[in-house]
Amino acid sequence: MLKGVKSDEFIVRLSCKDRPGIVSAVTTFLYQVGLNIVDSQQFDDRLKDRFFARILCEDSCKKIDIENLRSGFGAIAANFDMEWSIRRRSPPQRVLILASKFDHCLADLLFRWRSGELFMDPVGVVSNHSRETYERINLGEIPFHYLPVTNETKKQQEEQLKAIVEDSSADLVILARYMQILSDDMAAFLAGRCINIHHSFLPGFKGAKPYHQAHERGVKIIGATAHYVTAELDEGPIIEQDIERISHRDTPEELVRKGRDIERRVLARAVRYHLDDRVMLNGATTVVFPE
Amino acid sequence: MLKGVKSDEFIVRLSCKDRPGIVSAVTTFLYQVGLNIVDSQQFDDRLKDRFFARILCEDSCKKIDIENLRSGFGAIAANFDMEWSIRRRSPPQRVLILASKFDHCLADLLFRWRSGELFMDPVGVVSNHSRETYERINLGEIPFHYLPVTNETKKQQEEQLKAIVEDSSADLVILARYMQILSDDMAAFLAGRCINIHHSFLPGFKGAKPYHQAHERGVKIIGATAHYVTAELDEGPIIEQDIERISHRDTPEELVRKGRDIERRVLARAVRYHLDDRVMLNGATTVVFPE
Amino acid sequence: MLKGVKSDEFIVRLSCKDRPGIVSAVTTFLYQVGLNIVDSQQFDDRLKDRFFARILCEDSCKKIDIENLRSGFGAIAANFDMEWSIRRRSPPQRVLILASKFDHCLADLLFRWRSGELFMDPVGVVSNHSRETYERINLGEIPFHYLPVTNETKKQQEEQLKAIVEDSSADLVILARYMQILSDDMAAFLAGRCINIHHSFLPGFKGAKPYHQAHERGVKIIGATAHYVTAELDEGPIIEQDIERISHRDTPEELVRKGRDIERRVLARAVRYHLDDRVMLNGATTVVFPE
Amino acid sequence: MLKGVKSDEFIVRLSCKDRPGIVSAVTTFLYQVGLNIVDSQQFDDRLKDRFFARILCEDSCKKIDIENLRSGFGAIAANFDMEWSIRRRSPPQRVLILASKFDHCLADLLFRWRSGELFMDPVGVVSNHSRETYERINLGEIPFHYLPVTNETKKQQEEQLKAIVEDSSADLVILARYMQILSDDMAAFLAGRCINIHHSFLPGFKGAKPYHQAHERGVKIIGATAHYVTAELDEGPIIEQDIERISHRDTPEELVRKGRDIERRVLARAVRYHLDDRVMLNGATTVVFPE
Repeated sequence: MLKGVKSDEFIVRLSCKDRPGIVSAVTTFLYQVGLNIVDSQQFDDRLKDRFFARILCEDSCKKIDIENLRSGFGAIAANFDMEWSIRRRSPPQRVLILASKFDHCLADLLFRWRSGELFMDPVGVVSNHSRETYERINLGEIPFHYLPVTNETKKQQEEQLKAIVEDSSADLVILARYMQILSDDMAAFLAGRCINIHHSFLPGFKGAKPYHQAHERGVKIIGATAHYVTAELDEGPIIEQDIERISHRDTPEELVRKGRDIERRVLARAVRYHLDDRVMLNGATTVVFPE
Repeated sequence: MLKGVKSDEFIVRLSCKDRPGIVSAVTTFLYQVGLNIVDSQQFDDRLKDRFFARILCEDSCKKIDIENLRSGFGAIAANFDMEWSIRRRSPPQRVLILASKFDHCLADLLFRWRSGELFMDPVGVVSNHSRETYERINLGEIPFHYLPVTNETKKQQEEQLKAIVEDSSADLVILARYMQILSDDMAAFLAGRCINIHHSFLPGFKGAKPYHQAHERGVKIIGATAHYVTAELDEGPIIEQDIERISHRDTPEELVRKGRDIERRVLARAVRYHLDDRVMLNGATTVVFPE
Repeated sequence: MLKGVKSDEFIVRLSCKDRPGIVSAVTTFLYQVGLNIVDSQQFDDRLKDRFFARILCEDSCKKIDIENLRSGFGAIAANFDMEWSIRRRSPPQRVLILASKFDHCLADLLFRWRSGELFMDPVGVVSNHSRETYERINLGEIPFHYLPVTNETKKQQEEQLKAIVEDSSADLVILARYMQILSDDMAAFLAGRCINIHHSFLPGFKGAKPYHQAHERGVKIIGATAHYVTAELDEGPIIEQDIERISHRDTPEELVRKGRDIERRVLARAVRYHLDDRVMLNGATTVVFPE
Repeated sequence: MLKGVKSDEFIVRLSCKDRPGIVSAVTTFLYQVGLNIVDSQQFDDRLKDRFFARILCEDSCKKIDIENLRSGFGAIAANFDMEWSIRRRSPPQRVLILASKFDHCLADLLFRWRSGELFMDPVGVVSNHSRETYERINLGEIPFHYLPVTNETKKQQEEQLKAIVEDSSADLVILARYMQILSDDMAAFLAGRCINIHHSFLPGFKGAKPYHQAHERGVKIIGATAHYVTAELDEGPIIEQDIERISHRDTPEELVRKGRDIERRVLARAVRYHLDDRVMLNGATTVVFPE
């Protein structure tokens, strides 16, 4: 269990058109139902005139019923025309990981999960390669689904994938270098709950073989980008990015190697932020409340 | 004038022992007096059980009297035993800059001020070198004070400096590579309103010639540190730090050159944060609310 | 004068198809004519099968005639079919700086020149704005050329610019946020001797208003790119890039402000590398031998 | 096997007092024995008047006898009073990894080894904790040595450790967060062939609990340092460092978590540089020839 996560914590998230009195109304309500605010972050997007907040509260008496809480909050939310959610911080969210030939992101996510860095419940690993591909990774008891795919079977394979998402009640799907382009239909099905790691510093080098593109263009810095999946390839809202400095000495193979380090830490951060409800959509971009 | 700064903005800062109801009480008060919250950031230091907040509010009707505002807020503050301040964001704070032989930080601060990056009113430049030293810098109409100093005249020179601080009503004193160690008495006089730039990544390489120390130790990264001045040398609360990667090829002179870039951007950021009331003391450390 | 630059130093640069014996032949020649190698860097591009070297040598007796040196070296160079150059490190190269409304890069270059960081001889400043625009910058004795430009007068203005380049015998032209797109003809005229600073992390956000594009796309890191100018806009060989982390809190105006810091340090580094003959073209990319 | 490593590659390393003719003599010799230079890097430490070089050469005919090569080179080396080594790049060096309770560096090294990033032969893992501690790591066939230690048994435990180093013919010993301070005697035994990862940005926060020290001091950036082990604690020559930005929000536990990422990538880089003979000692510092 993630250090510091107590079973009586709630995460409230809300966004609405900005207007006076929002914080006062919300915090007074939380105070009056007996919740203590442990952490609160907010953001006014003055360009779009929209207000965002994430509030972590503690029920020190452990007597709050979440349905009652939601009902009470709903009245305030209606008044301000909010989009909002309230959930218990625990139990951890259910996560389905999709991988392909490259296993460094999968290995890293599982290592961080076992270290307590990622507060999640891995309900399955899906790959278009067989289980033997991951021999050097300790998959433990996590169900493994081998879903090979060809151009001809893509539609059918995605149906199987959908079924696995539904059967496992996955809250989040992680494309851990999955390397398969999702159909528009699949992207829509997973909207808002699917994170991809792209091995370039977007919007540079979209599409295939970004490290080779980077080498050819002669950039002096490479990067990776974690983003929500949308129908438009490599165009989803960006959650996190990071970079490394390179030089003319680096071959495309060296970039691939250096990139692995960037990819795994960028993906892990994005997943961690998402799991802790720190990421809110703001049009085509994200608000990410810092840890 | 800094873009986005309007004459009817107030910055409220407060810290107190954490307990339920603080945010509710404060935001409800601000709402009721007619202030709209434009940006609000808070931090619960759960280890020290202390709560910090910075709230930027807008008086869109321009009819609030600051003394009345302070009186009203004072009643709430007393109830929570707060340390607090409320000030108009404008006019800019009055700033006195102290420099020595190296002029890159001084030049940079003035350039940023003229560019509108630093919302401040430079009320004077003090140096232990004569005005001719700064020939290549455009000092404009800013009063220049030449205060030479020797071991024998140090006490007397600091008295002159104190008089300048007082006569100019400086809100902030910036040691822009001033290179003179302040006496304990002087440090106490300037407590909380004096920022120094130290040319190392503290706590490494305190004291003199840090770049030479760094070269000798063979570190692979150098840095600079902006901190509040306290009586203990190079031990004051850190506001901002930054670094650059170096290599075995760098001589101490190269480190000095590369360091100048780090120093000036670290100092400028720290000054900017301070001028916008983003920095709050938390024991020997700082809370810095991000821009 | 740049520290460490002595009047009896030569910089030899060469590139050729890789084959055994290059280094042996070159270093033996230099040894035999009495030059001592002070710094030597080389790079084998094994993908393109091409070899690059930069050798800094010292004539401690100050008796070498550069024409004789070139003749002797030319014989070896011919044998290996080299592209090559030999020049004295001193006097400094002649530099023409082009600026537009934004003056931070111009101010920075001049400050670094006066600090001894940039070993160059500024032979002129050209702008499409009048001299008054740069009132807060100390232009000193550097000739200033006011070349206003409209769509109608562009061709004619570029002719004037060409004349200035030629009359001033400029070795290098720096587009210090010049903001005017050069015609193909002008780009060809300046090929290999014109450095531009682009205010984005290329290849992302080419063209106009990159910070606004970055804000809209919601990237988490912004950057700047210094590159040689070619006819194709923002596609020239990249010399240097750098970045800063940003957040959802940053408006486009904040990005512009943060970007200024990146732009000026990236441009200054690229210019410095070029002035010290550290940059060699390798197809559409560059080899940059580190300092 | 590491991509690009061929069985007929030799790495030549040398250092000596600087004087004219070194490169010419060495490269001419290598050319004459039929070796082709694939990569060559050199460094003149003008402050210490010492010259360093690393040359990677290829024997494309695979007919060179290494003993003959060493004999021939030895004659040149003697003339210039060089410290030098020549070794085949393959087979990989034999590596012994020491770990303690924290397993992230151990797990990372093994993952990178299996990915082909680290060209090494892990001949053993030693820990003062039992094998069960590492259940989630795939140790495979690597011999595991459980060497518990108390203050009383330290001397004896180190004797066991020495025996393992000798029996396994380990070329390199890696302290992968081993957390035991080596005795002076042990440090001397491992001199030049033992790399430690220290979880702070040295020289800041030497000794125990550096993340807690960093939190208390309120630094804005944390780091990690890989260095050769010497008798003086945390004072050995630094091979590699890296950092992450932190904020006032980070508790010591968060720093520990963020630090794990820095530690493992810094250690992996240092090990990789060492394994490829890129690191040369230069007094109390290192020369690290870039990849």
